[in-house]
Amino acid sequence: KKSFRVVVLPGDGIGPEVTSEAVRVLEVISAVSPDIEIKLESHQFGGCAIDSVGEPLPASTLKACQEADAILMGSIGGPKWGVNSKVRPEQGLLALRKALGLYANIRPANFASNSLLANSPLKPTVAEGVDIIVVRELIGGVYFGARKELGTGPDEDSAWDTMVYSIPEVQRITRVAAQIALQANPPLAIHSIDKANVLASSRLWRKVVTETLQAEYPQLALDHHLVDSASMLIVANPRKLNGVILTENLFGDILSDESSVIPGSLGLLPSASLAGAPSVADALDPGFKPTSGLYEPIHGSAPDIAGKGIANPIGTILSAAMLLRYSLGLEKYAKAIEEAVRKVLDDKVAGGHELRTADLGGSVKTREMGDKIVETL
Amino acid sequence: KKSFRVVVLPGDGIGPEVTSEAVRVLEVISAVSPDIEIKLESHQFGGCAIDSVGEPLPASTLKACQEADAILMGSIGGPKWGVNSKVRPEQGLLALRKALGLYANIRPANFASNSLLANSPLKPTVAEGVDIIVVRELIGGVYFGARKELGTGPDEDSAWDTMVYSIPEVQRITRVAAQIALQANPPLAIHSIDKANVLASSRLWRKVVTETLQAEYPQLALDHHLVDSASMLIVANPRKLNGVILTENLFGDILSDESSVIPGSLGLLPSASLAGAPSVADALDPGFKPTSGLYEPIHGSAPDIAGKGIANPIGTILSAAMLLRYSLGLEKYAKAIEEAVRKVLDDKVAGGHELRTADLGGSVKTREMGDKIVETL
Ligand SMILES: CC(C)[C@H](C(=O)O)[C@@H](O)C(=O)O
Ligand SMILES: CC(C)[C@H](C(=O)O)[C@@H](O)C(=O)O
Repeated sequence: KKSFRVVVLPGDGIGPEVTSEAVRVLEVISAVSPDIEIKLESHQFGGCAIDSVGEPLPASTLKACQEADAILMGSIGGPKWGVNSKVRPEQGLLALRKALGLYANIRPANFASNSLLANSPLKPTVAEGVDIIVVRELIGGVYFGARKELGTGPDEDSAWDTMVYSIPEVQRITRVAAQIALQANPPLAIHSIDKANVLASSRLWRKVVTETLQAEYPQLALDHHLVDSASMLIVANPRKLNGVILTENLFGDILSDESSVIPGSLGLLPSASLAGAPSVADALDPGFKPTSGLYEPIHGSAPDIAGKGIANPIGTILSAAMLLRYSLGLEKYAKAIEEAVRKVLDDKVAGGHELRTADLGGSVKTREMGDKIVETL
Repeated sequence: KKSFRVVVLPGDGIGPEVTSEAVRVLEVISAVSPDIEIKLESHQFGGCAIDSVGEPLPASTLKACQEADAILMGSIGGPKWGVNSKVRPEQGLLALRKALGLYANIRPANFASNSLLANSPLKPTVAEGVDIIVVRELIGGVYFGARKELGTGPDEDSAWDTMVYSIPEVQRITRVAAQIALQANPPLAIHSIDKANVLASSRLWRKVVTETLQAEYPQLALDHHLVDSASMLIVANPRKLNGVILTENLFGDILSDESSVIPGSLGLLPSASLAGAPSVADALDPGFKPTSGLYEPIHGSAPDIAGKGIANPIGTILSAAMLLRYSLGLEKYAKAIEEAVRKVLDDKVAGGHELRTADLGGSVKTREMGDKIVETL
């Protein structure tokens, strides 16, 4: 029996509620499968860790994460630890990403169920058939370059940040995008986004993406868009970007959030942040090697509904599915969860259970949604 | 008779076609008004200038622009002068902005006529009543900070750009946003956008915007959004950002393009880039002092339809209206043009002429649209 160690970081706000349901799903998988065992352990992270030990990422939490096969996170932050506080939850998240080398952020923006099309802010004719996966570089660029704060010398009246990329950083994220593109049949197109008409780091980005794909993945279709024009296209005609959007950290932050509203419920969308580096050789052997990673729903901690038991757990449950796929190499179970979620969401006429939490205009509770998914599974 | 000098830069692609119509509109204003005279002169700029003299911004063009009261531009660029060319049209635009000190880019994203709501990619319930003006800092930030290209030392394998802001740069753009907000009655709310949870330059931005408005414009409502969350909101619930979006150069590039697709036709939207610096004293005397500026439609050069006479000239004509308002101080004529445009676009049932160019699904030509606007005027 193969044993896996998964660290759970419930975090703040609705985090504990939504991770509970995802944990149950993983426990069921562990219980029913003859060949694997998943050991789950919870650790403090985020605002609650600041409150209890004074820092968002305690050393014991970091150590557990480093030793785990994968990490499942809820959500962190809240008004209590705002932008003006000295110690903030998101510093813990940035530190964790960096410490674990989680350089590849993967965020699908697609419809968990076609019956949800009506929830999109876009017209059905525009939103229909949108199927985008954003692959965002996560530990480089302006997030981690040198910076200078206002009030420090020299030049006290100014502040600056450096957007910096090196060739190897862009190569490795390009390979992740390529491996993701190859998981589909036919392979997905890659849309690389930059601001090469202005930025030196974007010119490097465009050159390295182009050369890496040409040399290692010549079978993949590649095009380039400027970030301003991509941000238009995501609203005006998002199907044009169907496939993999490959971009750097800051642009990925903006565009992944923008594209995530297309499916009409943030509560449904998962994300993965991976550490493993596909190498040149992987081009010859497509398919993801299991790699350590952090998995979290894309929604925030929603302090306004925290504790009420009405949050949508699906984003976290689908994150658990991604965890099985990318970190434990259990594609079969990942698919089973995704199928169960679809079934629970689908309209009755389409053979589903048509369950809707508050964010989708219904009144189903967090726990009921979890129950039904576990049952369907 | 007061005389004004306006430089026209038709540029590339459909630029010459659309500026022709706006020039006719300005000529009509000049001819009919007893008290003013507008002298128009054309100069080479962009790709056509590269072809004829080897550079996008010839010295004679720059000189004419520096001496003019205002500049009306069409559009520049095209596949002929792509991202890989050494000399590119947009270098001319960036150089012109910098040389003239055009630090304040103003881009309204609203419906020129309610009858166009159906053209929006957003659902009518989401798009209805959206009325956003983006005020973007245009000659600072990562566009003009120090940078290093790939292949130059030290650290040949990397490239970087610097996102930098100083206190006075943020103060002056904040004042422009405040003056714009005060032109409406009641005054508009100001939504400042940054990434203060990560970037030092954004922390400076947030602090200076807050302090400047508190000290000089305490009557204005101000809130702050992170750029990722703003890019979601623009699609999911754009009315929440009704008012003035105030942001730095790169975020403004992305968000102004994103918000400009809401009204459903890029062909209708104008923009202004202003140089004049409202001072602290202006807070006591709201109302824009005329200042030199560059005015252009937000659409591109559309090489695919260039020369066919089917481009929509309204974005350029409304840019001419902004020119009258901000650079010549002729609010009355600006309003008259805007009224005429609305009348020409409005549905017949709403008392309009219901004219539609190809981009709006009709077959009206550039010239006919211009004729009708001139006639209505
Ligand atoms: C919390 C913040 C620092 C973070 C980021 O900007 O990366 C968040 O927006 C995200 O996308 O995970
Ligand atoms: C052409 C380009 C350099 C320019 C910019 O990024 O500022 C354009 O996108 C704009 O917004 O006017």
